[in-house]
Amino acid sequence: MNTRILLKSRPTPIVSPDNFEVVKEPLPDLKNNHVLIKNLYLSLEPAMKGWMTDIKSYVPPVKIKEVMRGYCIGIVTQSNSISYKPGDLVTGPFGWQEYAVVLDTTISFKIPNIPQIQLTYWLGPLGTTGLTAYFGLLTVGKPVAGQTVVVSAAAGGVGQMVGQIAKIKGCRTVGIVGTDKKCALLTSRYGYDAAINYKTSKNIVKDLSKNCPNGIDIFFDNVGGDILNAALMLLNHGSRVVLCGGISQYQNPDIQGPKNYLQLLTTSSLMQGFIILDYKKEWPQAITEIIEWIKEGKIIYGEHIIDGLEQTPKVLPMLFTGDNEGKLIIKISDVKSKL
Amino acid sequence: MNTRILLKSRPTPIVSPDNFEVVKEPLPDLKNNHVLIKNLYLSLEPAMKGWMTDIKSYVPPVKIKEVMRGYCIGIVTQSNSISYKPGDLVTGPFGWQEYAVVLDTTISFKIPNIPQIQLTYWLGPLGTTGLTAYFGLLTVGKPVAGQTVVVSAAAGGVGQMVGQIAKIKGCRTVGIVGTDKKCALLTSRYGYDAAINYKTSKNIVKDLSKNCPNGIDIFFDNVGGDILNAALMLLNHGSRVVLCGGISQYQNPDIQGPKNYLQLLTTSSLMQGFIILDYKKEWPQAITEIIEWIKEGKIIYGEHIIDGLEQTPKVLPMLFTGDNEGKLIIKISDVKSKL
Repeated sequence: MNTRILLKSRPTPIVSPDNFEVVKEPLPDLKNNHVLIKNLYLSLEPAMKGWMTDIKSYVPPVKIKEVMRGYCIGIVTQSNSISYKPGDLVTGPFGWQEYAVVLDTTISFKIPNIPQIQLTYWLGPLGTTGLTAYFGLLTVGKPVAGQTVVVSAAAGGVGQMVGQIAKIKGCRTVGIVGTDKKCALLTSRYGYDAAINYKTSKNIVKDLSKNCPNGIDIFFDNVGGDILNAALMLLNHGSRVVLCGGISQYQNPDIQGPKNYLQLLTTSSLMQGFIILDYKKEWPQAITEIIEWIKEGKIIYGEHIIDGLEQTPKVLPMLFTGDNEGKLIIKISDVKSKL
Repeated sequence: MNTRILLKSRPTPIVSPDNFEVVKEPLPDLKNNHVLIKNLYLSLEPAMKGWMTDIKSYVPPVKIKEVMRGYCIGIVTQSNSISYKPGDLVTGPFGWQEYAVVLDTTISFKIPNIPQIQLTYWLGPLGTTGLTAYFGLLTVGKPVAGQTVVVSAAAGGVGQMVGQIAKIKGCRTVGIVGTDKKCALLTSRYGYDAAINYKTSKNIVKDLSKNCPNGIDIFFDNVGGDILNAALMLLNHGSRVVLCGGISQYQNPDIQGPKNYLQLLTTSSLMQGFIILDYKKEWPQAITEIIEWIKEGKIIYGEHIIDGLEQTPKVLPMLFTGDNEGKLIIKISDVKSKL
């Protein structure tokens, strides 16, 4: 029997554990070119909120009663494919479930064995999270040494990497987070030059301005709302706002648009969204580069791992309240557990 | 004696005739390298609202008691400069006044005598207005033949040109305006494929969608607010929102940000501001190209000319209510009047 978590209802607009239901179903027979994967780890991401709605987007909405979409690390336990054999560690969109039966082309790739790289990193710095930081910062943000890069949700899965890649590129980095503990992490672990706690800040524009004496050249935004509005007021001429997320607005029934958006006009700046699927051909080169950075100790990565697939519906909302500390991952099974 | 219109107070936030005062002052002596210009025409632009506020921007705010900034066509009446002689027609930021005494480098350029080009066109299609349409559409919008270009305030000084340049580039053009008369102008004079009256539309998203069967690739926005929000809902993957103005919000004490801005994220699109001063080196080439289009009859230009400098404070607010029909120009003096 396979434990699966299905989407039961759509968020209205709050994401709630009640939007999901846990079921136990028998595994289907393994057809040609199909593989049976035992999931080990599941990556939780703010984008999941979007997948739960029925709004047309870059991927189709998850259907009601369908297993919830999610990127996983798994181990092949049975294979009717010539490309994979039992014991292979693989990554791909295997969903919120204990086992996945998938067509072999669904698998993103076989995870190479690199001693310095821990397995979960294939969901973090070497997964879609890391690729989001990499392509958002480098292709939209276009950092230049000496420029100032501000990152919101800077201790999150994406934010911590954006700061470190910006640092590799020679930029000044300023992170915005919601707790003093995260502030300390930013400067002590993730190499940020400065950190701002937006929850205790009395004037976010003033605090940002103090920490960005030369203005903002790149604002990598994961949150939207008041923080985006504040950053817009400090943009230099020709700045780039990398639109990665709007987590402060995802649970807001009356979404707040950035009222200072006309600052883009007066500063000849741009605000640009991106989807990492657009860069699929460049993923291998990006992953190779990130692996090198990790080996050289230039990227240190913080994870927040919670045990047990059945916890997932309760854990996902942590992303929207900022209760996670680092990349949020669900541990589904132990790699050494019985296949 | 020189009639001059000074900025008396800043808009709060409504632009009102009371923000200005008309004074008569003696002309100063003409210093070395200075030129005395008699102003003939003055261009009125929504950007003037920004110049009236004390917010730091791409140009310094106009000071209180200073002559209001404005681009003019004038005729040189006295010259202490080797570059200009009496009788030269010139264009530049000569301000809201009958006469201007300026350093010769303040003059943008001497207007060439081209029989097919009427004088006022040097404030419209060949002035900052035309350059705004040209550089905004071509360098930010990057139109490709077959794509759909939607323009707001499409019958205004900038909008009518954007539509025609987009047409030259082989695009489908859809204009949004506020009267049926302007709708008729768009399709009969300015070559738009379709026109929408947003004031009588019951559902602007639906009306836009009907007129953009292949979605929107470029939205050239002059107005912001609900119209920007509607266009954001119909963006294709990789679209460009050219941020030229937000005229619906300029008089709004509580500016409405585009609440659908996260559509930029899910469609990998960008929203970009621009300032034509950034392209100053390319102005001559652009003007040469626009002159050719006018000669070939590919650009037809609508003007709304009002007589009398002293009318200017009353006329400027027409831009914010949409009461102008075409490029708004003040006639200050007749070219043939006594120098």
